[in-house]
Amino acid sequence: MTRPRNDTLLRALLREPVEYTPLWLMRQAGRYLPEYCETRKRAGSFMALCKSPQLACEVTLQPLARYDLDAAILFSDILTVPDAMGLGLYFAEGEGPKFERPLRDEWEIRNLAAPDPHDELRYVIDAVAEIRRALDGSVPLIGFSGSPYTLACYMIEGGASDDFRRIKTMLYDRPDLLHHVLGVTAQAVTAYLNAQIGAGAQAVQIFDTWGGSLSHAAYREFSLAYMQEIIAGLTRTHDGERIPVIVFTKGGGLWLEDIAASGCDAVGLDWTIDIGQARARVGKRVALQGNLDPSILFAGPDVVAIEARKVLHSFGPGSGHVFNLGHGISQFTPPEIVTALVETVRVESRSFHGPQSPA
Amino acid sequence: MTRPRNDTLLRALLREPVEYTPLWLMRQAGRYLPEYCETRKRAGSFMALCKSPQLACEVTLQPLARYDLDAAILFSDILTVPDAMGLGLYFAEGEGPKFERPLRDEWEIRNLAAPDPHDELRYVIDAVAEIRRALDGSVPLIGFSGSPYTLACYMIEGGASDDFRRIKTMLYDRPDLLHHVLGVTAQAVTAYLNAQIGAGAQAVQIFDTWGGSLSHAAYREFSLAYMQEIIAGLTRTHDGERIPVIVFTKGGGLWLEDIAASGCDAVGLDWTIDIGQARARVGKRVALQGNLDPSILFAGPDVVAIEARKVLHSFGPGSGHVFNLGHGISQFTPPEIVTALVETVRVESRSFHGPQSPA
Repeated sequence: MTRPRNDTLLRALLREPVEYTPLWLMRQAGRYLPEYCETRKRAGSFMALCKSPQLACEVTLQPLARYDLDAAILFSDILTVPDAMGLGLYFAEGEGPKFERPLRDEWEIRNLAAPDPHDELRYVIDAVAEIRRALDGSVPLIGFSGSPYTLACYMIEGGASDDFRRIKTMLYDRPDLLHHVLGVTAQAVTAYLNAQIGAGAQAVQIFDTWGGSLSHAAYREFSLAYMQEIIAGLTRTHDGERIPVIVFTKGGGLWLEDIAASGCDAVGLDWTIDIGQARARVGKRVALQGNLDPSILFAGPDVVAIEARKVLHSFGPGSGHVFNLGHGISQFTPPEIVTALVETVRVESRSFHGPQSPA
Repeated sequence: MTRPRNDTLLRALLREPVEYTPLWLMRQAGRYLPEYCETRKRAGSFMALCKSPQLACEVTLQPLARYDLDAAILFSDILTVPDAMGLGLYFAEGEGPKFERPLRDEWEIRNLAAPDPHDELRYVIDAVAEIRRALDGSVPLIGFSGSPYTLACYMIEGGASDDFRRIKTMLYDRPDLLHHVLGVTAQAVTAYLNAQIGAGAQAVQIFDTWGGSLSHAAYREFSLAYMQEIIAGLTRTHDGERIPVIVFTKGGGLWLEDIAASGCDAVGLDWTIDIGQARARVGKRVALQGNLDPSILFAGPDVVAIEARKVLHSFGPGSGHVFNLGHGISQFTPPEIVTALVETVRVESRSFHGPQSPA
């Protein structure tokens, strides 16, 4: 049994009673923290930072030193898996991630193979083990991966896109090819997340950043089905503990019932949905994570406290809520404001839990 | 009484019986048409094209010459109103629209004034009159404007944005200032749309391209409330005919009930929502417009026909459906494929209407 001393996050994800609503922030180890920028500079490049288990561990722990957070999340890039498949990930200054060898022809697609996470992705698995040692049983460590559809967007477009023209053309014109890419990627992600769990990740999140760009039917066929396949293949109990799985589809608010039926324990919400309405729809089946608009952190501490309270009140009393932003924290967030957020949630959420709670 | 000879669109928007499902395409006069590119080249610049009533009329009619469409939509830019407010619209090559003088300080905001559409926006109103003459009673002409929140995004950010940092900071930190911008803009849009109606627009659409980037609460307060104010101020009957109003909020599928209660006649849907589910939620109150994923037009004619049929079947029998894309047509669309789409919808939709229809 390896529950961390603070297991509030794990309990909330499994809808077990908690004393307060746990909180972590997507991209909590990131550019808004000067200490992160300092480490990244020392690493030489973003990829060098990702590929060094020691430095990845260092930046993973930085937000926990500053804020009273209820979880650490592995610092890594979403595109490590396609990089390990040989696509050649690189970062062009100010342009976001790119691939040197995007998937463009059928031959390349038919030759795609799932990498061995203990070989080509060893640096990530080593980082997980190193972070677990460094956390020393304090808070849980969340592992993660991009969803197959989200990874395929980058693999086929070759980088970020605003219209997803190449992948959508393939989706409608050659669905067989896209299914092949997604099938291989789903196998790769399953093995990758299982390796993270084996090395010590105590919960995992699948980031489906681009599933929300699909029609409802295409979402189910090309994104959700593969996340479901991954979830079915994950090690759900490790060291005697249940490993909760969180699915976060940005823009997926319309499809909550489908996502909640995927086998996951928790659904991540972006900020466009009222979390109380989401709870009414699926809160009996899954925990919910979210969902403050990250832009609220550009406002003053009073506004942040008011808006954070609104999210807590909207969810209401009882377990099953993990407080988070509705998207990754912006690099332009003033670090001090995060303190106001964390304190508000910690203090104000107690009245929704415990013996005095109406739930 | 000035109903056009083909008034199928107007009847569908008002949920009156029709013989087939009418179709038009957002951005139907645009860069995917070689004849549009030729006229734009002749105009010298995009703004010169917008500002010439003759050339705007010419490009408005181009898609009607090629395809059997059920409506014309005024060719103009979404940002004419803030340009007329003195912000200085320009187009940097490959960068989209920009303002020379974005709203940055309180003094500028407090001095913002609604332009007289018959003066600073005369070129648009003249284009409407010219297009009506040229259409000669064939199909209806749709007028349009951006929503106040969408216009304010550009006015405050100074151009396109991927995080809306400036406007969201204002929204949360200085809501009074943003409400002032939106109030003045709503007045301006009301006068602008009424001038279009006075000059001959037979239906109007409000494009709320960025409302979907807000939380549910912020959407209601900062986007929907102002569209509601505009709708309440519109000339709803002109020349003895009802002028239907369409509201299109991209990413607004979660909030359909609120949008349907805004006073509009029809709700535009993006492609992420199943139109049958949307109809079940609000189809008794409003017509629905949409919602094929525009990316489907990158596929072959068989796929386009199958996917268009799925939209028709999902909506089902009975009036109240205007076929459209879920977003503007892409500049990369092959013009021939649009013929396949138009023919499929025209032919296949007949079985959902008329005496043999089960509705």
